[in-house]
Amino acid sequence: MLTRNPYEPLRSETLPARLGNLPEMTGRLGSAEGWRVREVGDGNLNLVFIVESTIGSVVVKQALPYARVVGESWPMSLDRAFFEYHALTRLGARDPGRLPALHLFDEGQALQIMEHLSPHIILRRGLIAGTFYPALGEHLGRYLARTLFRGSDLSMDTARRKADVALFAGNVELCGITEDLFFTDPFWDCPRNRHTPALAAQVTVVRADRDLKLAALEMKARFCMCAQTLLHGDMHTGSVMVSDTDTRVIDAEFAAYGPMGFDVGSLLGNLWMAYFAQAGHRADDAGGDAYRSWILQLAETVWEVFVAEFSLLWRTERGGILGGRELFENQADPLGAELMLHGLLADIWSDALGFAGIEMHRRILGLAHIPEFETIAEEERRAACERRALAAGRELAVHRRAFLTIAQVSDLVAGIEARAR
Amino acid sequence: MLTRNPYEPLRSETLPARLGNLPEMTGRLGSAEGWRVREVGDGNLNLVFIVESTIGSVVVKQALPYARVVGESWPMSLDRAFFEYHALTRLGARDPGRLPALHLFDEGQALQIMEHLSPHIILRRGLIAGTFYPALGEHLGRYLARTLFRGSDLSMDTARRKADVALFAGNVELCGITEDLFFTDPFWDCPRNRHTPALAAQVTVVRADRDLKLAALEMKARFCMCAQTLLHGDMHTGSVMVSDTDTRVIDAEFAAYGPMGFDVGSLLGNLWMAYFAQAGHRADDAGGDAYRSWILQLAETVWEVFVAEFSLLWRTERGGILGGRELFENQADPLGAELMLHGLLADIWSDALGFAGIEMHRRILGLAHIPEFETIAEEERRAACERRALAAGRELAVHRRAFLTIAQVSDLVAGIEARAR
Repeated sequence: MLTRNPYEPLRSETLPARLGNLPEMTGRLGSAEGWRVREVGDGNLNLVFIVESTIGSVVVKQALPYARVVGESWPMSLDRAFFEYHALTRLGARDPGRLPALHLFDEGQALQIMEHLSPHIILRRGLIAGTFYPALGEHLGRYLARTLFRGSDLSMDTARRKADVALFAGNVELCGITEDLFFTDPFWDCPRNRHTPALAAQVTVVRADRDLKLAALEMKARFCMCAQTLLHGDMHTGSVMVSDTDTRVIDAEFAAYGPMGFDVGSLLGNLWMAYFAQAGHRADDAGGDAYRSWILQLAETVWEVFVAEFSLLWRTERGGILGGRELFENQADPLGAELMLHGLLADIWSDALGFAGIEMHRRILGLAHIPEFETIAEEERRAACERRALAAGRELAVHRRAFLTIAQVSDLVAGIEARAR
Repeated sequence: MLTRNPYEPLRSETLPARLGNLPEMTGRLGSAEGWRVREVGDGNLNLVFIVESTIGSVVVKQALPYARVVGESWPMSLDRAFFEYHALTRLGARDPGRLPALHLFDEGQALQIMEHLSPHIILRRGLIAGTFYPALGEHLGRYLARTLFRGSDLSMDTARRKADVALFAGNVELCGITEDLFFTDPFWDCPRNRHTPALAAQVTVVRADRDLKLAALEMKARFCMCAQTLLHGDMHTGSVMVSDTDTRVIDAEFAAYGPMGFDVGSLLGNLWMAYFAQAGHRADDAGGDAYRSWILQLAETVWEVFVAEFSLLWRTERGGILGGRELFENQADPLGAELMLHGLLADIWSDALGFAGIEMHRRILGLAHIPEFETIAEEERRAACERRALAAGRELAVHRRAFLTIAQVSDLVAGIEARAR
């Protein structure tokens, strides 16, 4: 559909000539002479352009044949654009309005043209800046419940779900990245790792921590084998864009079938890391304390809204081969169905804590770090924040079945912060 | 490759003309004039012919486009021959010599030509006849350990395993049968069910048993979602052929990725049902007691050999992305790897008991019954045997995490038998 084949990466200068005769572009922007193009990709994998004119704007996202975060030495298949496209259409249908609209997908060029979200910013930046987002927790909790429930055997026809499992099983490369980068690399002396030098002693402790490593491998097995639902697969605060009133989820190229707790735990783990990073960004008397408390409250809201929405969908939309209505509601035993729900939520919860704890390690000791910590310039201050996050992550991963409520996790997190200061 | 297209079922009379110019046939049997053909299929789904001549014999197995057990009113895709072929080649390579040799597969005719096992009989018949098989437990325990271990992420390259998951995800139809026939049908008034009339009161109790139904749905979710390894998928005593010294596993058309405990539990559940059926077949003083004890011992051997062989493979062959060697052995912590093994074996064990307990219900209250019970002509006597099997199955499914050893299960089973007589 696009002007050139085979695949060739776009550049800001070549973009108008190459995309200038696409109705998906000209219909929104007018003719290419009036376009302004900026490359804004700050992720790890892709080119991202904002194309604007006096009448409109779009985002053009193109996969690169290597991992941008590492360079051309780490080649990476362009297929991920294909998987992202299929994930976006599915996730978007499961929680309408929570993902950017997709205007065009071109498989040969590994390219998507999509809605330009404005005035949205990446949530990580908002959390570093100390901005409050009143509706965020509700939006994200509901998004997680709707996409995870509706992509599972509790909702989908089993033949359709199996066809989808087969389709997304092809996303091997990006899954393989998750599997190694998350669950093993941080726990041994892998050359891809890096860490704040002042954490050297901590690193030694982590790599000798048998219980933590057992937890990491148990969570890895859950991730690899439990094809419970279609995950976003990279559900951190860098994959969320926010405005004062709106929340959108972007970047689904890591989509894969996996356990529901993975998306939930990735998000919660990143919120708890954002909490521990606050001490590096602002003093308590400059609103740091209040903002930290708000982040804890945000995590609680995400989980509580998730539980409420998931329970609602369970009672009102449940079907599929795992629904079990023929055994409970249809035999006048709705209580049995509620007990099933409790069991499932308990599993999602302990999984989420396990995945959160591992996420809090791999973002500090592994390859891909997060701006919340990286922007703390002073090394000892950064290391202190990271140490607290590691301490919390360790308890969450190892003792994931010991926490009954998210209030207990908030207590753990706040307690580690208080004792350290 | 075969003489006719499109697909057409073979008949004893047409088989020599249709297969008479295949070198896979004539090389083993000589020219078609000398063939003797018998149709022997007593399974639920397929045509099975034994073709013999003075110089050799083969088995010809052809899928029918409907479920033979029900009739043409239940149409069924011929694809299952394709999945069986792919499963046989994989399982056969993982435990060489334990499956029949495959001489030819013709996808268009849904047909396999394979080794004729002689003097083997179906294990169920041997168990009804009261025959002892000294090497059987070791063969089956080792077969389960080797196929389940080597088909998992503990052994396979992750990209290859994912490609296989995608391939077998296509076996939707037969998986769907398992999913409903096993895990839900027996627990509600499904028209496909049947049961010995004298069990009417028991059926009412089962369908009101909330804990049992919760267990059934939990096991269903494990089966549907946990893509741990390539299962045989129909690993009961009707899928095993035995001679005095040899054991072979046949009929892999239900192959699917699923939890290791499924094959283990299917087999154990069928052994325990064979135990409870003995009272219908022979009096204690006619050797019934000794044979019953041998069946319990057989189940114990299967599990103990499974554990020993699985542990050996774990220590000597473990690799793959779930192996975790980089975290344990490579950091001089072999004990960590042993703890991982214990955790995995504990999960396989409780899964196996759960699946066994459900199998013991669906074979008595669902669609597909077993000869061990069906050949007990006197109804009240049959019902008594079936009632004891249901009582044991219920405890195994509901309390699957409460049994530490298989000796405890033997005690449960023997205790139910003793109290009832």
